[in-house]
Amino acid sequence: MAEKKATGKGLAGVIALDTAICDIDGQKGILTYAGYDIADLASNCTFEEVTFLLWNGRLPEKNELGDLSLRLTSERTLPPMVIEMLRLMPEDANPMAALRTGISVFSLYDGEADDMTPEANMRKAIRLTARIPVLIAAIDRIRKGLDLVAPLDHGSTAFNFLYMLSGDRPGEAAEKTFDTCLVLHAEHGLNASTFAGRVIGATLSDMYSAITGAVGALKGPLHGGANIRVMEMLTDIDRSGADPVQYIDALLGRKERVMGFGHRVYKTVDPRATILRGMIDTLSTERGTRKWYEMSIEIMEVMKERKGLYANVDFFSASVYATLQISTDLFTPIFAMARITGWTAHLLEQWKENSLIRPRAAYKGPRGLKTDRS
Amino acid sequence: MAEKKATGKGLAGVIALDTAICDIDGQKGILTYAGYDIADLASNCTFEEVTFLLWNGRLPEKNELGDLSLRLTSERTLPPMVIEMLRLMPEDANPMAALRTGISVFSLYDGEADDMTPEANMRKAIRLTARIPVLIAAIDRIRKGLDLVAPLDHGSTAFNFLYMLSGDRPGEAAEKTFDTCLVLHAEHGLNASTFAGRVIGATLSDMYSAITGAVGALKGPLHGGANIRVMEMLTDIDRSGADPVQYIDALLGRKERVMGFGHRVYKTVDPRATILRGMIDTLSTERGTRKWYEMSIEIMEVMKERKGLYANVDFFSASVYATLQISTDLFTPIFAMARITGWTAHLLEQWKENSLIRPRAAYKGPRGLKTDRS
Repeated sequence: MAEKKATGKGLAGVIALDTAICDIDGQKGILTYAGYDIADLASNCTFEEVTFLLWNGRLPEKNELGDLSLRLTSERTLPPMVIEMLRLMPEDANPMAALRTGISVFSLYDGEADDMTPEANMRKAIRLTARIPVLIAAIDRIRKGLDLVAPLDHGSTAFNFLYMLSGDRPGEAAEKTFDTCLVLHAEHGLNASTFAGRVIGATLSDMYSAITGAVGALKGPLHGGANIRVMEMLTDIDRSGADPVQYIDALLGRKERVMGFGHRVYKTVDPRATILRGMIDTLSTERGTRKWYEMSIEIMEVMKERKGLYANVDFFSASVYATLQISTDLFTPIFAMARITGWTAHLLEQWKENSLIRPRAAYKGPRGLKTDRS
Repeated sequence: MAEKKATGKGLAGVIALDTAICDIDGQKGILTYAGYDIADLASNCTFEEVTFLLWNGRLPEKNELGDLSLRLTSERTLPPMVIEMLRLMPEDANPMAALRTGISVFSLYDGEADDMTPEANMRKAIRLTARIPVLIAAIDRIRKGLDLVAPLDHGSTAFNFLYMLSGDRPGEAAEKTFDTCLVLHAEHGLNASTFAGRVIGATLSDMYSAITGAVGALKGPLHGGANIRVMEMLTDIDRSGADPVQYIDALLGRKERVMGFGHRVYKTVDPRATILRGMIDTLSTERGTRKWYEMSIEIMEVMKERKGLYANVDFFSASVYATLQISTDLFTPIFAMARITGWTAHLLEQWKENSLIRPRAAYKGPRGLKTDRS
């Protein structure tokens, strides 16, 4: 077998597979899901419609959307074992570790866990998309010593999640903005967690195994944690009472990195940031707190002026979640509750025409050693 | 960024990274761990010595080996939550799903789970290597309605595992043969589970996340399940009372695949098979059952004669585990209890000089679609 050495580190630039799910043009700042521009989808489609699109490669008919919504509603339950586990868990457990564990437990109570037919895998994708928000809300309320809030028998994923998390029915702007956050985070090509999921799935292991691995990858600070670090910066500015512009200038003066600006893929504007920025104003008015919004706009403007850098999706999603009073360490679990749709779409695609994903390593160690014991 | 299309499917032949852990020459049938031939290691070293070798790149001094053995002994305990979970789990749960979940739970009770210093990661590697055998034995005994058997305060991983599993102290040949199985399965380059683990670890996610993903990948029938299918064949021959040679001839006549022969990597002999074959004779005498041994030798000889194919490691490990009366669906968990050393060695190596592992996908879907709702 001819060996092809990847010139970049970590397979950078190597094309591993073909996909029809997502296309990213980083130079032009364009992101499309199955051929639709992300700005079009964010303005005109709900998270449930986008979920159908990612799984099926086309937008749903009205009855198909109604059917999916019904099925999501009917699957918003957790195995009792999961709740028991959350109650026993140390209060300070990492919520991503709790999420990973809960998803792994799901499989023990799913009689279809190892059924690899496309129909069963689609049902599992629906089940995971329905249950992960319930699991995240349960993780948060149980560790805070609060009673669980059961989901309603109707309503969107966004509405139900915010309701289960806080116990209060979210306002229109809250639901709409959060729904848009889910749309914007649903899919982003062959990132590390999606790739990990496909590597696992390509052994013909089950969907829960692949998603458990994907959640594990998303947990890594180099992948899913960026908006947490944005929030830490915003919180630091808020607590210290500093002027945002002076705070950023001081960071730049010390040559420290300002989180939430620039993007490895997008060389100009991150199209998702533009969409979110437009929504936070209305959301802030509804929630009666403009603090995070105003701070974000100030930082955005000074970064544009000083460094010519654009805010990315992490920057504005931090402000949205903060305005919704969501705990900072839930930001990555929320990323997972959106990305579950992209992950499962990639698994369904992988299994349509499966082959094992297995590159090689070049051996650079010692040779010809002997134990001298024979 | 220049895009390099991998010509093979699934990154076949693409070199993703450098390693000093393992080298495989499939043409010559040679496998080495850190420069030592597998036959030399299998004859002269214990699993604990090989574990030290994989983690440190050199064999241990006597005091280092004593220290590792002590630490493994002291870590052979499970968080009570894991045992509770196993008791509540459906009896017919997939043991690999149970193993994956148990390992994920481990992290919730490890205060060092997110400590990424090399020292903490080495301690976690020891903890995982010590606890996975205890977890597997607990999974098996609890589902069978048996009391748990506590590990001894001394003795090897192989000895303690067989003891915890059966409640009986294993004989000398049983311990030695099983120990050799662990040595032979400890490491095998950048296979799908090891690669999945490194992809997850490369996001700087924690060791438990990476190992949970690796276990999920090993669970796949294209990866870890080969000796299960060998065993299903052996069991079928045994139950039907067929003559092994006639059974194989009938399979070949129907052009069906005979499991346990040939190997994707090894084009001649799988060096691990040769080693195991030599040990099963003594083991069978000690255990007082030569059934699986004799059947395996007959099948091996007819496959050599008819097809010129050599038995691989899966073929003989199935006979070993059957002779030890281990349940067939524990074969893949046992693979994991050996490979945990290779997986963790690869993670320690990955984190020495980390970079994100993220290839690209080529977009082959529709373009320029509009929702027509604006």
